[in-house]
Amino acid sequence: MVTMRLIGWVRSPYAETSQIPKGCGAKHEAEGILEILPEFERGLTDIEGFSHLFVLWAFDRATGFELVGMTPADDRPHGVFATRSPRRPNPIGLTVVELLRRDGARLHVRGVDMLEGTPILDLKPYLSGVPAERLRRGWLAEAEARRGQTDASPC
Amino acid sequence: MVTMRLIGWVRSPYAETSQIPKGCGAKHEAEGILEILPEFERGLTDIEGFSHLFVLWAFDRATGFELVGMTPADDRPHGVFATRSPRRPNPIGLTVVELLRRDGARLHVRGVDMLEGTPILDLKPYLSGVPAERLRRGWLAEAEARRGQTDASPC
Repeated sequence: MVTMRLIGWVRSPYAETSQIPKGCGAKHEAEGILEILPEFERGLTDIEGFSHLFVLWAFDRATGFELVGMTPADDRPHGVFATRSPRRPNPIGLTVVELLRRDGARLHVRGVDMLEGTPILDLKPYLSGVPAERLRRGWLAEAEARRGQTDASPC
Repeated sequence: MVTMRLIGWVRSPYAETSQIPKGCGAKHEAEGILEILPEFERGLTDIEGFSHLFVLWAFDRATGFELVGMTPADDRPHGVFATRSPRRPNPIGLTVVELLRRDGARLHVRGVDMLEGTPILDLKPYLSGVPAERLRRGWLAEAEARRGQTDASPC
């Protein structure tokens, strides 16, 4: 058992999950603020040099978990570890955001897909990706193919 | 406060942190096994279709945290949220691994940079990356430039 503390809050335009674009082809262009608590502000030193960040956060409004379940991206069920479902054994969310600017302990970012008031657990610099030609996207690619969709946006 | 449970263990060739390649230019090609607990095996359904996974894990042998500190990648200190230091307010590690094959609840992967016996907290499919031309790598790029290094491997 590991206990996590919050390091800040997400300020997001989304008050309810129904407002967050979901499923394949969803675009996450919403702007928001990562409001870091004053006692952790020094930990942001030099973060402004990075264009993208990993945000680790808590699905604080999800309850329980489901090992196999439906997602908005397909009409077939999948294992929870093959999806981004909020109903996970450990309710940790992971989002890559673009850092637009830093204003003290407030990071203005693009690409939030969290609810207003979501607790932030950690930030890390995003450093590199897997080249597209080496990436296989499993059931998602299949679900897209069944719908005749070719857009490879994450969902 | 959020409490996390372990969903499995990392089987890694690394028994001590000194054995793990660190700093810029470090290659993470080591193979290992993500051994998921039997009660969570159903959550792996369809995971074999993905080439890469995010692994969220606990720095279970790190103690305390440091808001600004040195890393192996530079001779200057940086804020903890601009680094991958293990000494973080919430000791969560994040690694992208390549999934080589699944054998029941055992996932054979390449790219482990965790110690043997590290607790796993979550797995998620890796779906897409930020295009290289849109990525800025902050103090890391500067540290590399000072050393005359051009390799953009993550560290």
